[in-house]
Amino acid sequence: MTADHRREHDLLGDRDVPADAYWGIHTLRARENFPITGTAISAYPHLIDALAAVKEAAVRANEELGLLPADKADAIAAACREIRDGKLHDQFVVDVIQGGAGTSTNMNANEVIANRALEILGHAKGDYRHVHPNEDVNLSQSTNDVYPTALKVATISAVHGLLDAMAVLRDAFAAKAEEFRDVLKMGRTQLQDAVPMTLGQEFSTYAVMLEEDRSRLAEAALLVHEINLGATAIGTGLNAPAGYAEAARRHLAALTGLPLVTAANLVEATQDCGAFVQMSGVLKRIAVKLSKSCNDLRLLSSGPRAGLAEINLPPVQAGSSIMPGKVNPVIPEVVNQVAFEVIGNDVTITMAAEAGQLQLNAFEPVILHSLSESITHLGAACRTLAERCVSGITANTEALRASVENSIGLVTALNPHIGYTAATDIAKEALASGRGVAELVLEKGLLPADRLTDLLRPAGIAGTGPAPAETGPALAGTTA
Amino acid sequence: MTADHRREHDLLGDRDVPADAYWGIHTLRARENFPITGTAISAYPHLIDALAAVKEAAVRANEELGLLPADKADAIAAACREIRDGKLHDQFVVDVIQGGAGTSTNMNANEVIANRALEILGHAKGDYRHVHPNEDVNLSQSTNDVYPTALKVATISAVHGLLDAMAVLRDAFAAKAEEFRDVLKMGRTQLQDAVPMTLGQEFSTYAVMLEEDRSRLAEAALLVHEINLGATAIGTGLNAPAGYAEAARRHLAALTGLPLVTAANLVEATQDCGAFVQMSGVLKRIAVKLSKSCNDLRLLSSGPRAGLAEINLPPVQAGSSIMPGKVNPVIPEVVNQVAFEVIGNDVTITMAAEAGQLQLNAFEPVILHSLSESITHLGAACRTLAERCVSGITANTEALRASVENSIGLVTALNPHIGYTAATDIAKEALASGRGVAELVLEKGLLPADRLTDLLRPAGIAGTGPAPAETGPALAGTTA
Amino acid sequence: MTADHRREHDLLGDRDVPADAYWGIHTLRARENFPITGTAISAYPHLIDALAAVKEAAVRANEELGLLPADKADAIAAACREIRDGKLHDQFVVDVIQGGAGTSTNMNANEVIANRALEILGHAKGDYRHVHPNEDVNLSQSTNDVYPTALKVATISAVHGLLDAMAVLRDAFAAKAEEFRDVLKMGRTQLQDAVPMTLGQEFSTYAVMLEEDRSRLAEAALLVHEINLGATAIGTGLNAPAGYAEAARRHLAALTGLPLVTAANLVEATQDCGAFVQMSGVLKRIAVKLSKSCNDLRLLSSGPRAGLAEINLPPVQAGSSIMPGKVNPVIPEVVNQVAFEVIGNDVTITMAAEAGQLQLNAFEPVILHSLSESITHLGAACRTLAERCVSGITANTEALRASVENSIGLVTALNPHIGYTAATDIAKEALASGRGVAELVLEKGLLPADRLTDLLRPAGIAGTGPAPAETGPALAGTTA
Amino acid sequence: MTADHRREHDLLGDRDVPADAYWGIHTLRARENFPITGTAISAYPHLIDALAAVKEAAVRANEELGLLPADKADAIAAACREIRDGKLHDQFVVDVIQGGAGTSTNMNANEVIANRALEILGHAKGDYRHVHPNEDVNLSQSTNDVYPTALKVATISAVHGLLDAMAVLRDAFAAKAEEFRDVLKMGRTQLQDAVPMTLGQEFSTYAVMLEEDRSRLAEAALLVHEINLGATAIGTGLNAPAGYAEAARRHLAALTGLPLVTAANLVEATQDCGAFVQMSGVLKRIAVKLSKSCNDLRLLSSGPRAGLAEINLPPVQAGSSIMPGKVNPVIPEVVNQVAFEVIGNDVTITMAAEAGQLQLNAFEPVILHSLSESITHLGAACRTLAERCVSGITANTEALRASVENSIGLVTALNPHIGYTAATDIAKEALASGRGVAELVLEKGLLPADRLTDLLRPAGIAGTGPAPAETGPALAGTTA
Repeated sequence: MTADHRREHDLLGDRDVPADAYWGIHTLRARENFPITGTAISAYPHLIDALAAVKEAAVRANEELGLLPADKADAIAAACREIRDGKLHDQFVVDVIQGGAGTSTNMNANEVIANRALEILGHAKGDYRHVHPNEDVNLSQSTNDVYPTALKVATISAVHGLLDAMAVLRDAFAAKAEEFRDVLKMGRTQLQDAVPMTLGQEFSTYAVMLEEDRSRLAEAALLVHEINLGATAIGTGLNAPAGYAEAARRHLAALTGLPLVTAANLVEATQDCGAFVQMSGVLKRIAVKLSKSCNDLRLLSSGPRAGLAEINLPPVQAGSSIMPGKVNPVIPEVVNQVAFEVIGNDVTITMAAEAGQLQLNAFEPVILHSLSESITHLGAACRTLAERCVSGITANTEALRASVENSIGLVTALNPHIGYTAATDIAKEALASGRGVAELVLEKGLLPADRLTDLLRPAGIAGTGPAPAETGPALAGTTA
Repeated sequence: MTADHRREHDLLGDRDVPADAYWGIHTLRARENFPITGTAISAYPHLIDALAAVKEAAVRANEELGLLPADKADAIAAACREIRDGKLHDQFVVDVIQGGAGTSTNMNANEVIANRALEILGHAKGDYRHVHPNEDVNLSQSTNDVYPTALKVATISAVHGLLDAMAVLRDAFAAKAEEFRDVLKMGRTQLQDAVPMTLGQEFSTYAVMLEEDRSRLAEAALLVHEINLGATAIGTGLNAPAGYAEAARRHLAALTGLPLVTAANLVEATQDCGAFVQMSGVLKRIAVKLSKSCNDLRLLSSGPRAGLAEINLPPVQAGSSIMPGKVNPVIPEVVNQVAFEVIGNDVTITMAAEAGQLQLNAFEPVILHSLSESITHLGAACRTLAERCVSGITANTEALRASVENSIGLVTALNPHIGYTAATDIAKEALASGRGVAELVLEKGLLPADRLTDLLRPAGIAGTGPAPAETGPALAGTTA
Repeated sequence: MTADHRREHDLLGDRDVPADAYWGIHTLRARENFPITGTAISAYPHLIDALAAVKEAAVRANEELGLLPADKADAIAAACREIRDGKLHDQFVVDVIQGGAGTSTNMNANEVIANRALEILGHAKGDYRHVHPNEDVNLSQSTNDVYPTALKVATISAVHGLLDAMAVLRDAFAAKAEEFRDVLKMGRTQLQDAVPMTLGQEFSTYAVMLEEDRSRLAEAALLVHEINLGATAIGTGLNAPAGYAEAARRHLAALTGLPLVTAANLVEATQDCGAFVQMSGVLKRIAVKLSKSCNDLRLLSSGPRAGLAEINLPPVQAGSSIMPGKVNPVIPEVVNQVAFEVIGNDVTITMAAEAGQLQLNAFEPVILHSLSESITHLGAACRTLAERCVSGITANTEALRASVENSIGLVTALNPHIGYTAATDIAKEALASGRGVAELVLEKGLLPADRLTDLLRPAGIAGTGPAPAETGPALAGTTA
Repeated sequence: MTADHRREHDLLGDRDVPADAYWGIHTLRARENFPITGTAISAYPHLIDALAAVKEAAVRANEELGLLPADKADAIAAACREIRDGKLHDQFVVDVIQGGAGTSTNMNANEVIANRALEILGHAKGDYRHVHPNEDVNLSQSTNDVYPTALKVATISAVHGLLDAMAVLRDAFAAKAEEFRDVLKMGRTQLQDAVPMTLGQEFSTYAVMLEEDRSRLAEAALLVHEINLGATAIGTGLNAPAGYAEAARRHLAALTGLPLVTAANLVEATQDCGAFVQMSGVLKRIAVKLSKSCNDLRLLSSGPRAGLAEINLPPVQAGSSIMPGKVNPVIPEVVNQVAFEVIGNDVTITMAAEAGQLQLNAFEPVILHSLSESITHLGAACRTLAERCVSGITANTEALRASVENSIGLVTALNPHIGYTAATDIAKEALASGRGVAELVLEKGLLPADRLTDLLRPAGIAGTGPAPAETGPALAGTTA
């Protein structure tokens, strides 16, 4: 041991840790044991903050139950608050993918908090006689209740960010829905021309989907409010004194402002990852629909000359290193990729949850890792899509209207008036001859001209309301 | 055309269909176009019944709105009711995996109903002048609202069966939890001996998980009650008269007894598969936990001599074609496999949902297929597990108690009383020497004997309540 | 027991089986134990045939080694041959998803073969003193070597069918590539107009992809030729006499015509599902590219008026129950859905393979089930796509050529001659003004007219060769 | 613009970039457009090196073809070499998940190389008149051939590292297989006691699996040697001069030492992600088997007292924050989690590959991201497992031998000698009475004692060879 190290001891023997490190021997071993991703848990500030909140709640509960003296409790709580204020995050150095069901993350926290508390009390780091990582900071706790609880608090916090980002995107789509409310276009089913609608209706669906998904996400987040703090090792609460679970929950709820509840069956709650699987399933649902919406945006903006060219995405960068003037839908493309990542993460989380055995799931670290990625990347994707793409979309209104007037799909509107069989014949003839539907209906005397004009008014056709005579100009070619 | 065929006509020309077939030319072409799985949609009776209910609701709405005369409406409704009574299911012959967003399934229904209605009215099959598949049976409808609505009604119906099956399994686990409430055993985390618990606690977790999953499933089923009947092709309601959507919904709710609601935004509802993705996500959650539970059952019953041998599964068949006397955990094994299938199906459904484009998802047939398999197979798996396995499980009580008395994990109970450091030393010495924890604690004078006896009472250790003097015998070796 | 039943006995006691059933008590119990899918293993004729071949090879090996008398061996072999001739398949009644690592399938085969052999020898069914399902038909075998070996032989056989179907589709695409070799069109990247190419080039990629995938599939099939017959229960060959493994392999190779090899490490081979995971991975690869190709076909044929409308898919059925004249890309759509199913099955197979424990994977039945579905459905999809879609595709040649002449992408061809910066300016101006690229280049004097004409000849642009003066007419607008 | 910035220009206008940045305006915009993961592409040094090699090969090909003067080419090549020597990696700052099919990564490289070349030539950064990112560094190239080619070279390089790591793990397992070659134990199927084997056989399977997987990985890597350099935008080679593709390939092969080949059909090669899907499928196969092996290790080392306790994993850290003396299988656990991540990544890659459209797959960035993670994390997992777990495993030899002697499974060895039926009865009686199999066989006079002794010799039972009299001591209880 040199001057810039201190010696610490554990089950396996002695090791030297850097003198200025707040983490200790358990963290040191974990770093050596898990050289997997190179990414430390400090990459998930939500988790670090949540861990510190859990530790602070625990110490206050222990103090309340007479298990810790006030001065020691105060020092530990102060250390936790510093972490929650964003300090010492760089001391959370164990790998995001780690064995041991989160023990290394918990011990990393115990050691950092103990050493900071020691400093606050005027002791040297590593002098654990005064504040001990296990016997004081981890008192009445086990990794198996602390870690899932912290994971849940962190998840709730991250989800709030995602809900906000989704709201921003929803609003961007809704604004465009309003802007495009009178833009008539052909609706498509199975990529084939179907019947008319408005571009506003099309954009409104994206806003509605997002709002529905926000509701599902909020519901899934509610499930995550059920914690197992006080369960200790396997849910029997061994070593946690009577009243501890409730006191710790109360303090944690107060510190976080979250309506946390203690699970009714702590043995079940300690081994069950159902709430994370459900959360990931909802994130996958969001990813599926976000991806579908971006597929639509890319399709509708295809062109500029050999595509659908219905809308224009705002250019945000040159699109090609070789094709001058090319602008690509790079923002929807990056969102698609985040969606694919989230869908893959769901499989990872599913497998990790299924692999739990008996009283514990040892694979929660990868669940945390995948879930955190999914939530934060989806949030970034939503904001980016809103701000760098959707808000700048413009419509090629005239071309869209022309496509309706030129469509075969108009015949569907006449279906109830001339019958499916006659309508089929008209459609076939229009398609074969290149002529217009209205023209053929009149020519064959299937409907009088004024009736036809009424039937083909845009508002009625697009289903945005009834079709009284006054709602907007009739389509060209039908007024004759 | 021979005597045993009748000639029908469609967009593509004429074709002969068997004279006794209730299906017609559209179905004929679909059978030829989709020779994929060899399984007809009649394999999903829930879907056939739901389709007939939707058609009956539609015809009644059309009658109410004056679009169909009573006699024709009555004949169509009568045909629908026959189908819902289980008749004519063999006439639903198109493949479960089909292109066309369900059009072939819808046309199969339209043709069967039209031809049966023709018979009821005294006409020959195929004489569509009197009852037409499209113009009468499909009146005011489109595949794009009929098919998703039927899929939803079918799903709700199937889910009710699954909820019942899960309740049976929950009760089987709960009965065992009660039966094993006093059976002490070692709890395990990460497959390593942890701290004591009861076998009853272990089984109670399976019951609790199932009940939680039932709640999630019921919530997911609620989302499926939102239908888009009346949306027609793309949600604009083109060709459906004013009042139709509400009338059809009302009739369908009455026919099915389900509190169905019409989606607020029909354009969105027509293209959105979110409710199916959510449902599949919940089925995956159920599969994950069912699989985990079965993994546990197989592990706990491993042996008979070189395994954990904590519990015995009832033998249901000889286990080996070569190893005499071998009995295998075949029932949990089959449940595991259903779980893997459900998890795979979720990926299929996810991809199908993501692939929707613009105003429609053309891939709902494979969503239906995968969802139906997942729901019905999970239901069969739950019942089989309850009836052929869980209800006959017995415990090796004495061996379990011995394992607790012999455990190192007992030391954890002493942790708060002798400190983590001293406890660690005791654990290490017990492990190295093969001696008992209690013995070593006394030998070292860390606790007086009567205090130790009190601390190690089973009920207290297993966390089933406080540890007063009267709650059961103390563990052997600790009373000294 | 009544006259129409016979009584059989096993480890668990007595049961009556129908007198005319070739299967016996083990099969009876399995049917009761696994009421999961309702689909019997007879749905996989490849597997039944393969099982019979394995049994015939085993009986011949046993006879050769003096373990079975010739008359008994002949009767057993005769029964096996009958099965391979397609008889008695209806006697294979256990569920496709079953617990027990395939024991029930193996016992089903043992019982059917024993009872048929008994008949051949003039004995009553069930009189197992003369031919015993376990002691004779299963002699020197275990489910754990018979079942994987049969699964492999069945898989190879099914894969041959898929390779053929893929060749049919490859040829259909190649024929179109040839037919469309001179059809100029705009190539697209990221759905944006890029640079010119020919439709023939586009279709050739689908043919090339399929041929590459066929190579990968054939390679994966090679791995499946490694069998573990002779391994018995766990690979140690316990109970199989010296020489048995080699003799059985030799007979099986002769019977099937396949170059089968015995694994070098039978313990490893008995527990390892790697070859199936690899096979499923390749099937997934095929599915991915088939799906991508169908996405392209649907996109290129979108329209008829508001889409890309580059190609026309042959109509195979009316596309809508409500929109007259609508024809949808139903064949590509059904292929997409098969692809989604195959991708989901890969996850199922992955999970089942990962769940193997110690000396055996108990989940091979679901691997068989998923793999069989993937292979046969992909084969059906390829044939259907070739015969009902690709072979009838036509091109809208004039519109395609016009889109090239009207494109901005032409400017890329001038990039090396006028520089990226000047080309970018031309592209911007063309886009803003709606004018043509060639026109602007000439106007600005960036290139002389004849040089421009040379540069823009189609063959050169589409990269099908150099651009000498004689290759085809120059594009309109560039000859001035 | 201040002194510490320089002004650059692109299609969208002017922007200021930091004066000391080697990257330019295209990179600046990309950073703003893709704020998704916060991880820059510099996290993948394999990719940066590969990109630099591709650029160097391209510049040499251009020089050779007379398109670039020697001094400019030399400066560009020198810049590339610096990057390949590990310099300037911190200038590769665009996000790993990005839209645009890799354009931003390519432009980041073009800009860094151009600016470094400018410096080498004595010009100021940003003075692109002398060396231009597009017109010089990217000459004859497109993102669509450069990026996939770099991705392939990077993948090959990363795979070599994984092959090495797998070899280390294979050797660790093989060494243990040798060490444990004489350790008799019970083999298990379906977690039930089956028949005897050696622990050496069990460990040999892990070594064999890894070696087989290495072969598959090497095969998959071969496919990645096919590149599309020279394809430019869509594979037609537009703008690349005759001879360029071959010259660039030759230079790249020389620079990397890899036997690269140019794809026969460049249009196909430019859009096809099949080789990446195949690679990911093989990585998934490796993950599946690695996970299975780790499941086994965790199961076999379960205990210390209430588990199988067959082997001991070396303790690498304290296992619990609450349970003193507990040591957990943290190294296998972290490997399991990497496996789950790889399996999830395979789904991400599958979806990204499937989403390719027409002439390009725009989603290669997320394919790169997921593939890189899978390869490097698997490599780290293999090394960690070898060095921190497998190499330190010890066996509980005596307990293992006792479990064989105490087993019912011994009866299987007698099966061929006393018949399945008699063997079944012995097994049942042994199980019911708790007595030994050998004892019962002798008592019932089914075999003479000396014959029994011969049959039950370990070497014979474990199938490691014939059972001559001299191979090891007979099992206790069978010599009588």
